[in-house]
Amino acid sequence: MLIDIITIFPGMFSALEESIVRRAVLEGHVQISVTDLRDHATGKHRSVDDYPYGGGPGMVMQPEPFFLAVERLREVDATVGKVILLCPQGEKFTQRKAEELSRTERLILLCGHYEGVDERVREKLVDEEVSIGDFVLTGGEIAAMALTDAVVRLLPGVLPEQSVEDESFATGLLEYPQYTRPPEFRGMGVPDVLISGNHKLIREWRREQSLLRTLYRRPDLLSGADLSDKEKQMLKDAALRHGMTLEL
Amino acid sequence: MLIDIITIFPGMFSALEESIVRRAVLEGHVQISVTDLRDHATGKHRSVDDYPYGGGPGMVMQPEPFFLAVERLREVDATVGKVILLCPQGEKFTQRKAEELSRTERLILLCGHYEGVDERVREKLVDEEVSIGDFVLTGGEIAAMALTDAVVRLLPGVLPEQSVEDESFATGLLEYPQYTRPPEFRGMGVPDVLISGNHKLIREWRREQSLLRTLYRRPDLLSGADLSDKEKQMLKDAALRHGMTLEL
Repeated sequence: MLIDIITIFPGMFSALEESIVRRAVLEGHVQISVTDLRDHATGKHRSVDDYPYGGGPGMVMQPEPFFLAVERLREVDATVGKVILLCPQGEKFTQRKAEELSRTERLILLCGHYEGVDERVREKLVDEEVSIGDFVLTGGEIAAMALTDAVVRLLPGVLPEQSVEDESFATGLLEYPQYTRPPEFRGMGVPDVLISGNHKLIREWRREQSLLRTLYRRPDLLSGADLSDKEKQMLKDAALRHGMTLEL
Repeated sequence: MLIDIITIFPGMFSALEESIVRRAVLEGHVQISVTDLRDHATGKHRSVDDYPYGGGPGMVMQPEPFFLAVERLREVDATVGKVILLCPQGEKFTQRKAEELSRTERLILLCGHYEGVDERVREKLVDEEVSIGDFVLTGGEIAAMALTDAVVRLLPGVLPEQSVEDESFATGLLEYPQYTRPPEFRGMGVPDVLISGNHKLIREWRREQSLLRTLYRRPDLLSGADLSDKEKQMLKDAALRHGMTLEL
């Protein structure tokens, strides 16, 4: 996979040179290249932004540098892939979207800034707009890092398969509680079942914890989870005890 | 405001030394300090993780280094503030949450990794768990950056006030389309109203665009927006034309 990132803050992406993304790059699972948008600025001041038509505070990013940057990247490597603009108005990024994008050969990520990006970039250059959540960031860079991190860790061979299958959202449920050494820490122990050595009981306990945690914290996720009839009944009973209404 | 970040990848946070966060630090609006969790590792190998009780893939982060790191930070500065664990099971981070946290004197952010953090950290050390979205990252670092960026830009004096008031989510609506120079770019123009000089018309057009964009892309946000009766009617008509059902 090839991920191109177009940004006015190329230095920020050194953050991806640590952690699992770095290993994925070193092992050849992904190539990440960062382009400074200012290298494609035209005009005499090499600016990439200008005042908004119609007035208002702040600056708007001009269309031309983005078009030139993407065209140049496609001259270097012709793989078409998808051009994605990170912005608050985009489609909400989810684990499902991360899985979908992890099957794309190439992503070209555009990081917006200031009061936004000229609408013509969205109309003609961008294939998809993606938002990492209902909050406003100073720019698209951290969102691009989040997307890159979430996608790269799903590429085949980057993580051990079982790690990916068990985790939150992949199963439609939140993850169960985890404990490690020491067994006793400041008066707090570890649930007996986890040190029982009985793997069937451990599996059942974890599944139940996962179900209950999802019920209490994120009941909206349960409708998308794969549940047995017995599990549905257990959840309905627990919901009733907590005065929650639950449709399954 | 003081933001302490506890992480096994302190180098990643150099990404915050660009953009608006950097300026906010230089101007004294916020102090950001990054602690390497490994400095608080005990044991002979100075490890911060160990195998999960009950088995399973991956490693779990041990409780002690987190407790020691937070205690040390509170020795250096006694401001209590809030300890926040970034993890997929947490409360969804939103603009409202960013606003709430921007009124806190101190945040201590814990970045989880691997298969998660020992449950006792959540039970006794953490005040809140926050998730930036329904997707899985390799660690809490990028989430901590997103939270920091979203919170810092809301601190008084960091951004011009009008910039913050107009933007997506602050009003409960997505932002209107923006255009800047050139007026004609590759056959694409700028809406006439924006170059009309009629500020009343421009305001109305922007409001309508904002409403319609929210209707088409994120109708769920409309229920939280402040709408006049006339606007509600306009939205219902537009919804009808697009075969959408809309409750307002």
